[in-house]
Amino acid sequence: MTTPQSTVVVTGDRTTGPLHLGHFAGSLQTRLQLQDQHQQFILLADTQALADHQGDYHGVRQAVIDIALDYLAVGIDPQKSTILIQSMVPELAELSFYLMNLVTVARLERNPTVKNELRHKGQERDVAAGFLTYPISQAADITALRGTLIPVGEDQLPMIEQTNEIVRRFNRMVGKPILRECEALLSNTTRLPGLDGKGKMSRAAGNHLSLSASADEITAAVNRMYTDAQHLTVGSPGRVEGNVVFSFLDAFDPDSVKVAELKAHYQHGGLADSVVKARLNEVLQALLAPIRARRQELAKEPDAILSMLLCGSAKARQTAVLTLHKVKTAMGMYYF
Amino acid sequence: MTTPQSTVVVTGDRTTGPLHLGHFAGSLQTRLQLQDQHQQFILLADTQALADHQGDYHGVRQAVIDIALDYLAVGIDPQKSTILIQSMVPELAELSFYLMNLVTVARLERNPTVKNELRHKGQERDVAAGFLTYPISQAADITALRGTLIPVGEDQLPMIEQTNEIVRRFNRMVGKPILRECEALLSNTTRLPGLDGKGKMSRAAGNHLSLSASADEITAAVNRMYTDAQHLTVGSPGRVEGNVVFSFLDAFDPDSVKVAELKAHYQHGGLADSVVKARLNEVLQALLAPIRARRQELAKEPDAILSMLLCGSAKARQTAVLTLHKVKTAMGMYYF
Repeated sequence: MTTPQSTVVVTGDRTTGPLHLGHFAGSLQTRLQLQDQHQQFILLADTQALADHQGDYHGVRQAVIDIALDYLAVGIDPQKSTILIQSMVPELAELSFYLMNLVTVARLERNPTVKNELRHKGQERDVAAGFLTYPISQAADITALRGTLIPVGEDQLPMIEQTNEIVRRFNRMVGKPILRECEALLSNTTRLPGLDGKGKMSRAAGNHLSLSASADEITAAVNRMYTDAQHLTVGSPGRVEGNVVFSFLDAFDPDSVKVAELKAHYQHGGLADSVVKARLNEVLQALLAPIRARRQELAKEPDAILSMLLCGSAKARQTAVLTLHKVKTAMGMYYF
Repeated sequence: MTTPQSTVVVTGDRTTGPLHLGHFAGSLQTRLQLQDQHQQFILLADTQALADHQGDYHGVRQAVIDIALDYLAVGIDPQKSTILIQSMVPELAELSFYLMNLVTVARLERNPTVKNELRHKGQERDVAAGFLTYPISQAADITALRGTLIPVGEDQLPMIEQTNEIVRRFNRMVGKPILRECEALLSNTTRLPGLDGKGKMSRAAGNHLSLSASADEITAAVNRMYTDAQHLTVGSPGRVEGNVVFSFLDAFDPDSVKVAELKAHYQHGGLADSVVKARLNEVLQALLAPIRARRQELAKEPDAILSMLLCGSAKARQTAVLTLHKVKTAMGMYYF
């Protein structure tokens, strides 16, 4: 039961492919903690994924199932967290449509996140309208579900700011506090680097290790990981900063004393890359084996996954329908 | 029953105020003809009206009822035409949301209708996102209701073109002819001028005569109508072109022989403005008296009007839900 004051977490993933270790370090662990403390909605953003993956209908649809499996495999509990499919809660699209009148084109273009991605894509004005307006869609997702606490990375802070701008503008316009403002929950983990050490781990960059990776795939990934290019002989001192293997140990090795010892030894000289990699391989195998096993078990009953998603979407829809009712009534769009 | 080949008319009004004589000459008469020939949806565009009239919630809502009364008063028959409220068919907003990925920002900015209105408003990029994207919203309204024949003025032709671009892009992308292309039905009446002769009649310009005008309001409007500023004495020849009184006689006097005689007499000289105005007053009183009487009668039972709009919206929703089901299935957004 949501009280007006209660904290509601809204988070989610664009459904462009199965999750990887970067998600585990960045968002999944946070969600595991949050589901014990607050009401939490986790959104499988299929319509938002389609904006970037036009025409890849099969892939986006498959990713919905894959990511749901990943969630359950790592311990997201549908009794505690509500997992929903964006396209199954049409009120999210409807609210987005109404909020479009509250943001100028100029303001959207100034959004640093949008700006960066536009520059990155090199498309400028040839970008789809749905891409330019996706901060509005995010604001609709958050506010329709009455979210107040949004786990984000630093680069997503402008999205939260824009959401709150929209909330304030809407509430001021209708003269009532209908929509709720939210705050960002900044993740305190640094971003997991890709296997190649170039930027963060991402499926698009191909430098990722899937949560569902087999034992052999894990070993192969560890073997191809970048260490320190200057560390040419075992005896010479090695660098720990920017060394992907140590970044992974920092993120996943439960024995931090052991990691500190390895670091000191490596920096001093005399510790082979192969020894550090063997340790990381051991850690990752131990971390991922139970996740993989649970995932394989769950994948045997796809109907149960679909049923869970149907229930989650229906539950989320109850909240969204109520928000939409309030929004439309406040805007005068009630006729009976 | 709609067959795949059947013609479906989609038309409507932004609900910014009661209709006036300009609507009667421009669109209502066409709709009266079309409702006997085809399936016809008439959309009360309340959400689109809000885009321009932010915060005027009471006015937009009242206009929905006023315009519905105007429709029925002039003879639109809910048994033949389906009258719906845009916000009561949320599938229109939902489809709009999906179509946003199919149009670039650059393409929207090139739309001549949008361009003109932007220039007119003098707002440029400070315009709301919902304004820039309203051609997408119109495309969603038309295609969700499976419209094939769209009565428009010449200035709206780019909207039809853009709708068909979206239809073709969508169908090509999903590899199936899910959405229907439409064609414009250009109105053959010239636009009714405003009472002041400056441009077309419009509520915004304040040069309109409401369909529900009282007998005294009609007389006052005719009296303040512009004629020919050079026609200083009764004896001198007068101009008929650009003479508002004659434009109105052309549009509404059922006796075209009489109008031709009056024109010849006026051009020759010897016919007083007051005589022509008296004729027009007679014509307009005869035209509007029964409309006004019917309107007053209907306004006594607001619940019947609301009930009619509820039924119309529900009926339109049947069509829109089916379209959305096809659209989402084709896009892979089906999970069960």
